[in-house]
Amino acid sequence: MTLLIGKQLFNLAEKLWPINRSITGDGVRTTLQIIKEIIPALSIHEVASGTQVFDWTIPKEWRVNDAYIVTPDGEKICSVRENNLHLVGYSVPTRLTLSLAELQNYLHSLPAQPLAIPYVTSYYQERWGFCLSQKLRDSLPNGLYKVFIDTELFDGSLTYGELLVEGKSKKEILISTYICHPSMANNELSGPSVVTFLAKWITEKTRRKYSYRFVFVPETIGSLTYIQRHKDQLKKNVFAGFNVSCVGDNRNYSYLPSRRGDTISDAIAKHVLKHVCASYKSYGWADRGSDERQYCAPGIDLPIASIMRTKYGEYEEYHTSLDDLVNVVTPEGLEGGFSVLQYAVEALENNCYPKISVIGEPQLGKRGLYPTLSTKASGTAVRLMMDFITWSDGGQSLLEIAELCQVPIWDLYPILETLRSHDLITVEDQNLNFS
Amino acid sequence: MTLLIGKQLFNLAEKLWPINRSITGDGVRTTLQIIKEIIPALSIHEVASGTQVFDWTIPKEWRVNDAYIVTPDGEKICSVRENNLHLVGYSVPTRLTLSLAELQNYLHSLPAQPLAIPYVTSYYQERWGFCLSQKLRDSLPNGLYKVFIDTELFDGSLTYGELLVEGKSKKEILISTYICHPSMANNELSGPSVVTFLAKWITEKTRRKYSYRFVFVPETIGSLTYIQRHKDQLKKNVFAGFNVSCVGDNRNYSYLPSRRGDTISDAIAKHVLKHVCASYKSYGWADRGSDERQYCAPGIDLPIASIMRTKYGEYEEYHTSLDDLVNVVTPEGLEGGFSVLQYAVEALENNCYPKISVIGEPQLGKRGLYPTLSTKASGTAVRLMMDFITWSDGGQSLLEIAELCQVPIWDLYPILETLRSHDLITVEDQNLNFS
Amino acid sequence: MTLLIGKQLFNLAEKLWPINRSITGDGVRTTLQIIKEIIPALSIHEVASGTQVFDWTIPKEWRVNDAYIVTPDGEKICSVRENNLHLVGYSVPTRLTLSLAELQNYLHSLPAQPLAIPYVTSYYQERWGFCLSQKLRDSLPNGLYKVFIDTELFDGSLTYGELLVEGKSKKEILISTYICHPSMANNELSGPSVVTFLAKWITEKTRRKYSYRFVFVPETIGSLTYIQRHKDQLKKNVFAGFNVSCVGDNRNYSYLPSRRGDTISDAIAKHVLKHVCASYKSYGWADRGSDERQYCAPGIDLPIASIMRTKYGEYEEYHTSLDDLVNVVTPEGLEGGFSVLQYAVEALENNCYPKISVIGEPQLGKRGLYPTLSTKASGTAVRLMMDFITWSDGGQSLLEIAELCQVPIWDLYPILETLRSHDLITVEDQNLNFS
Repeated sequence: MTLLIGKQLFNLAEKLWPINRSITGDGVRTTLQIIKEIIPALSIHEVASGTQVFDWTIPKEWRVNDAYIVTPDGEKICSVRENNLHLVGYSVPTRLTLSLAELQNYLHSLPAQPLAIPYVTSYYQERWGFCLSQKLRDSLPNGLYKVFIDTELFDGSLTYGELLVEGKSKKEILISTYICHPSMANNELSGPSVVTFLAKWITEKTRRKYSYRFVFVPETIGSLTYIQRHKDQLKKNVFAGFNVSCVGDNRNYSYLPSRRGDTISDAIAKHVLKHVCASYKSYGWADRGSDERQYCAPGIDLPIASIMRTKYGEYEEYHTSLDDLVNVVTPEGLEGGFSVLQYAVEALENNCYPKISVIGEPQLGKRGLYPTLSTKASGTAVRLMMDFITWSDGGQSLLEIAELCQVPIWDLYPILETLRSHDLITVEDQNLNFS
Repeated sequence: MTLLIGKQLFNLAEKLWPINRSITGDGVRTTLQIIKEIIPALSIHEVASGTQVFDWTIPKEWRVNDAYIVTPDGEKICSVRENNLHLVGYSVPTRLTLSLAELQNYLHSLPAQPLAIPYVTSYYQERWGFCLSQKLRDSLPNGLYKVFIDTELFDGSLTYGELLVEGKSKKEILISTYICHPSMANNELSGPSVVTFLAKWITEKTRRKYSYRFVFVPETIGSLTYIQRHKDQLKKNVFAGFNVSCVGDNRNYSYLPSRRGDTISDAIAKHVLKHVCASYKSYGWADRGSDERQYCAPGIDLPIASIMRTKYGEYEEYHTSLDDLVNVVTPEGLEGGFSVLQYAVEALENNCYPKISVIGEPQLGKRGLYPTLSTKASGTAVRLMMDFITWSDGGQSLLEIAELCQVPIWDLYPILETLRSHDLITVEDQNLNFS
Repeated sequence: MTLLIGKQLFNLAEKLWPINRSITGDGVRTTLQIIKEIIPALSIHEVASGTQVFDWTIPKEWRVNDAYIVTPDGEKICSVRENNLHLVGYSVPTRLTLSLAELQNYLHSLPAQPLAIPYVTSYYQERWGFCLSQKLRDSLPNGLYKVFIDTELFDGSLTYGELLVEGKSKKEILISTYICHPSMANNELSGPSVVTFLAKWITEKTRRKYSYRFVFVPETIGSLTYIQRHKDQLKKNVFAGFNVSCVGDNRNYSYLPSRRGDTISDAIAKHVLKHVCASYKSYGWADRGSDERQYCAPGIDLPIASIMRTKYGEYEEYHTSLDDLVNVVTPEGLEGGFSVLQYAVEALENNCYPKISVIGEPQLGKRGLYPTLSTKASGTAVRLMMDFITWSDGGQSLLEIAELCQVPIWDLYPILETLRSHDLITVEDQNLNFS
């Protein structure tokens, strides 16, 4: 494997790594600008703090100037400049001197992972706090500590990116990822990296049957904002799509269904994963945890499934400083995540309803497609083509035929082309009402 | 466990024990009178002998004055006053002197259960006979025996009890049990005992969504009679119900489906039993044997399932004198039988179609229903509430949501209340066309 | 087992054995004449070479006068008079002298089966060749060989046989087999032998609910020809049917579905086989290989399943000289093949929608159909009758009732008769729209 695309994906993730992102603020803006360098047609949108979004309200924008603690020994620890996970997300401005015992109420660490800095936020309740390794916490001496948090919470806006790519049909495939996590790699620099290059690949294709909607949002509040602004179009046009998250490690593949579980996105996801990695892990809707919660919510119900590598919450480095570009996310992992989504998109593009144009079996021999000498062994050579033909009754999709033939759908693309070139098969476009 | 209700159930069973019941006669009337002391609104009905009931005819009423055998030694055995199982049900009046060899043709015993007196009846064919233990039978000396059967068969009536309890809806839940068995405990004093107290509990409830129809009938001919008299109302209003039999021992729980097998009664029965006793025994329609045969017959097809403890025919004491209030039926057993039916009725009452009233996930945090600090572990605490919400799309019943969440439906009652009190969920009444 | 029919079947197969059949020619005509001796109403049809049949063209007729090879030693080998498999089917006339090395290009043998002469044809591409055992081939000395093939390819016709047997309904059962194989026994003298006697049996029945269409065709081109000529009638009237092939050995039973897999033919085939031979082998549509490919093709889609003994391609003697009437096909094997098809046809004839004519359970006792003494054991004796009654709601077929009762459908025939004679059951004819 050359890992050409894997290295590009990894390079982008590395470039995005140091930026201090949250659900609002310049971290998101800088991230989107870097992505826009690769997909220049990306449009960037701002929605004002205080805007009502369904049951939610867009919070104030959060800006971090500096934050740290000074120990009784005068040592500066938990500096947000050293690691942006040190500061609890959305911490309010604070200057305090307090004892270690008092300070402990504002510290977060993980006893079971003594070297990990946990990722903690408090978007909708004003508070402050610091995250640090259990090891550092255990070493803190008694005495007075100075807390310094120079942050601002102000009426600003929430920022998101959107890229619409037109195809022959107005029917859309929605690809969404989120850009609100600070320096963590699988959850979640892998998502924006992979989606950026998927968007680039789609944009550069000369033929597209479908239109595409790529969405880069802060998780939850961002997807809700996006849905509120585009609900009617989304419900009218989106017939398939994926929420892209945790696609960067090389340990396994995973699938999480849409709420209904029986959409074309689900069928495609399971088909692709089965043929790429038979041992992929299949989750249920009960295991959901990302923006599919909004896209598939009652009343919205878009056909959005999730194709992942190792799922959020299912690896120990999750939501800690250990989720990095060294031990967790790799070029191989990113390339795998990109590839399965590419297979899935190609399957959606190629899916159709093939119909044999003759009655009874066609005589393939006279077209050079079947051995003319009938022996005990003839037939096996063209078995897949014959199976393809027998199922091509116009009532079954290419995906369903692939399942019936027990082959990956991509094995049928060249056969479909051959039979179409001999005028033996006609196709109808995918039934977009596929449930 | 306090067994408060268990002891009440047991006391009633003990009170009913000595009465010599059959499908007609004063035994049934006395039994219904005792039940009426607990549920005074019970109405008692008489249907004349000779009445045509579908394919059947109500037989003559049977009265037993006395019956016994005198041995060659002058000993009185098989006295119906000693054990009412001694006389074959519906035995005709008989005074005979005959040899042991001749007598043997009229005796019934169970070689495999040498201490048990079997339960034998001949309702629709005139004959006579005695039942006795194999041990006693084997000890009978040769010689002449005197048979004395002082019974009467006369144009009387069949007796049944009925209690209608009105609810907000005219739609009904039917609870039927039978009162034709003489002194046997699980099959069948447990049934009338449990149904009596279920009726008392329902009657005393301040709010009832549904109406209730409690029926105490002789088995087969009684349920047919009841159906013939109320067929149109039953078919129009009964949307769920249970035939209650064998609910008094403490050995297991059992389920027997309705004929169609997919009614709301079946779904509720399986759900309740699964969560009360994961190892409950599930039977098929082929194993039927009680009044569900009539309620579910082609042309009637009411949605009646059976929730039992140990099923008739499946325990060795069945239909013998060993089915008693000592070794078979216990207060614990009765309490368990009562409880599962109570759970089932409550599930029917509470079932509804919840619908989330906001689009997208609600922001539970601002209502104090979700932790405001987001850490690696947040979410699990309110997982069940979130799962409840995600399935509340108005298209799935509370029962179906409980199945999706893999919890007993009663775990959802308080969550439903909380969400309704925050105006986050609206409910529609159960779809009464549930098939 | 007397094997009366088995021996008749075997005798016919022996009579047909020596004839040199192909997809056209006098071998087919002679075969049909012999069959016509048993079913005189058989009509024989000729369709001219060159006729367009859907995507195919009927080839020239092929006549074999003589064919053999003369070795350098002057020995005559591979004589078609010795074994008609020696000559590749449809070999063109040839007179050549050539070296062993050159000859090898025209020889066919099976290294893994050194004593078997393989069966090879080239219907649609002009060529010539000889088939021989690997053992003989290995013994051939170097030197010059003389090839002598006296065959004719000329504008003649394709021949097939058809027998229509009228029943009360115009709805038809189609039974098709093929008559294009030279001297091979299971594949395929068993098929025409069994179908001939099935046709004789049907013709001689005094009552037939359905009409029957027996078809004897050359495989593929013959069934396509037949379908083209009768497409509208077939699609309108055929509601069930079987392609009959490989029904002569005694090793196993097999089932191959129709393309849709859920027709009444499939249900009947599986039911019959399950009860005749629980360990029968079930294939999928992917394993198809005979005329079901045409009868079930998209656009034709007749409900044709296959009931076989050991399937073509699944036994080592298949398509070689070893598929004979000594080691492969036996009277027992043929009798078994005949019997399962007979069971299947009887099941189709007897299938109906029984409906109980009383409401509630009927009182069987008063009709002498139920024990009047009720004991612990009563009920089991008439259990099947009671089960039959409970499922006879008019919405389920006799076949479905047999499945529900877990008995072969033929166990229900006498019960149905008994209940009909007591006016307890009425029947409606099979729903011919059964899918």
